[in-house]
Amino acid sequence: MQRGKASIEFEEPPLILSDASVAGKKEGEGPLGKWIDVIERDDRFGMETWEQAESAMQKQAADLALEKGGIRRKEVRYLFAGDLLGQLIATSFGTVDLEIPLFGLYGACSTMGEALMLAAMTVHAGYADRTLAVASSHFATAEKQFRFPLAYGNQRPYSATWTVTGCGAAVIGKAGSGKNAKNTPRITGVTPGRIVDLGAQDSMNMGAAMAPAAAHTIRQNFEDFGVDAAYYDKIITGDLGEVGRKLLLDMMKQDGTDLTDIHMDCGIRIYDSEKQDTHAGGSGCGCSAVTLCAYVLPRLRSGEWKRVLFLPTGALLSTVSFNEGKSIPGIAHGVVIESGMTD
Amino acid sequence: MQRGKASIEFEEPPLILSDASVAGKKEGEGPLGKWIDVIERDDRFGMETWEQAESAMQKQAADLALEKGGIRRKEVRYLFAGDLLGQLIATSFGTVDLEIPLFGLYGACSTMGEALMLAAMTVHAGYADRTLAVASSHFATAEKQFRFPLAYGNQRPYSATWTVTGCGAAVIGKAGSGKNAKNTPRITGVTPGRIVDLGAQDSMNMGAAMAPAAAHTIRQNFEDFGVDAAYYDKIITGDLGEVGRKLLLDMMKQDGTDLTDIHMDCGIRIYDSEKQDTHAGGSGCGCSAVTLCAYVLPRLRSGEWKRVLFLPTGALLSTVSFNEGKSIPGIAHGVVIESGMTD
Repeated sequence: MQRGKASIEFEEPPLILSDASVAGKKEGEGPLGKWIDVIERDDRFGMETWEQAESAMQKQAADLALEKGGIRRKEVRYLFAGDLLGQLIATSFGTVDLEIPLFGLYGACSTMGEALMLAAMTVHAGYADRTLAVASSHFATAEKQFRFPLAYGNQRPYSATWTVTGCGAAVIGKAGSGKNAKNTPRITGVTPGRIVDLGAQDSMNMGAAMAPAAAHTIRQNFEDFGVDAAYYDKIITGDLGEVGRKLLLDMMKQDGTDLTDIHMDCGIRIYDSEKQDTHAGGSGCGCSAVTLCAYVLPRLRSGEWKRVLFLPTGALLSTVSFNEGKSIPGIAHGVVIESGMTD
Repeated sequence: MQRGKASIEFEEPPLILSDASVAGKKEGEGPLGKWIDVIERDDRFGMETWEQAESAMQKQAADLALEKGGIRRKEVRYLFAGDLLGQLIATSFGTVDLEIPLFGLYGACSTMGEALMLAAMTVHAGYADRTLAVASSHFATAEKQFRFPLAYGNQRPYSATWTVTGCGAAVIGKAGSGKNAKNTPRITGVTPGRIVDLGAQDSMNMGAAMAPAAAHTIRQNFEDFGVDAAYYDKIITGDLGEVGRKLLLDMMKQDGTDLTDIHMDCGIRIYDSEKQDTHAGGSGCGCSAVTLCAYVLPRLRSGEWKRVLFLPTGALLSTVSFNEGKSIPGIAHGVVIESGMTD
């Protein structure tokens, strides 16, 4: 159950029964486009405001995850969800119609990790037979809130990332509850992360702010479970981008761990940065959430990967703290997901 | 374990091992002042900005809760914490030095309820021996973010509430872990709430936005546990204020339930509204968190109250959604806390 200093091991691993990904036009044109369930050509999702668009995207992803799993809303006992916006308005307005008790979460771009951890912990403890984990971000709501209104057309340094317009939703169910549980990915353990603040201050270089947190959680995970990098087929960070990836690889090398081949970053994977002008890569809660549902889970289902460490990363940045000269602390939450095919 | 449609009952109820409250000058001058652990005369807590002040208050409350319980930081496995600010900056900067893995939460003013629920669920499941639940708010950070800078001196209608400058922190431990467990309050059940949106649109009347959510969670709690109002010595809402209280009592009367005598609202209790010019009452995550630690838990410890339903209420409001003409959805999370003296 408790493993080491900070981790939890699930004796009867909760299953990821079904999932769905919904994303915008740019994400649809990227390398993962062909695997994303729904690509909306209109980034307003038919709504009047960007915030309503993000809410609509959450609702669509949640409903589709339920539909794909043949699960009714009433069969989901608790919802764990969040987004990047102040007071989680995308989530509040996006999930109200689900009528499911809500645990609102904020972990910056690590939210899908936080949601999956709590959703699995809740199911494994027997508090619920099914829970739903949801996280979203939207390029236009994030730029408006964190940086500049889009109409300014401001320039971006190469270390900057591009906030993903996307939402991922996953239904977690108790062990043995899947129709074909042998093909169903399962959450076998979690390593909740702590805040790591090495004093990074450049809001246009969030990869540097998050890499130390990612390294910390990976080390904690290795220590708690008594494993090393070879235990995993992939270690998948959320949105370090090119700059953050280099830093992470360097930091892990200091431990004698070479992650070059098994490390994958959702932010790097989701766009073709040269063709799509996204600089260091994608970011936002939606980045890891969409990549999980569209790219990672299918590879676990097919057995191509047996075991991954899914590690969404968050930069705990706000315009208020930034303008007051504060640093950007980072956090990273680790979720061990195994292929059903290992049984 | 699972009770009814939305609740959880704990067979071996987790204990509230220790707690602490820290608040500002105005709260210290109010009716609860004599029971609040620390009253800071300087609402900046010696810091340069209001946000840093709120962070300092969180750290002080967390450290004091640990100190009062004779518990070291390393003995706390997970932290569940939140505040009202965009991207939870009071929490990020306030808790970084604790070096405890963090689950960041946002439930508007219901956050102390959400934190207690998850902290208790985690302990009861055996995932941790001790967890820490923390929630804060600060009058100046909240006014700056949600309404106007203080220097404007804008007028406030009588339905408006006053954001509490305060933080409550509680250490939750597994059953039997207290030094004198007989006197230790315990969490025997929880009823996580769902978002209720009846279309309230007045940001200066948040009581009206939250009352329907409070009524919904109370009804759900009664139904799930098969009890009625007489089961509790007190039903304690977070920050409905005078206006929201009237609405709640009216709504419950429609069910034939008279809550007039057993209902208490932290927002009404924390200030003397006539003398302190706080209009409808106090609000903010800190309102219910401080009232819990300074006023509710001592009465459970003494045995004056045997069983309460602690029900922090949240108005899911943001300036962005408000300015876009959206309504203010509400949420309320129910925590059943019993006196150790019932054993």
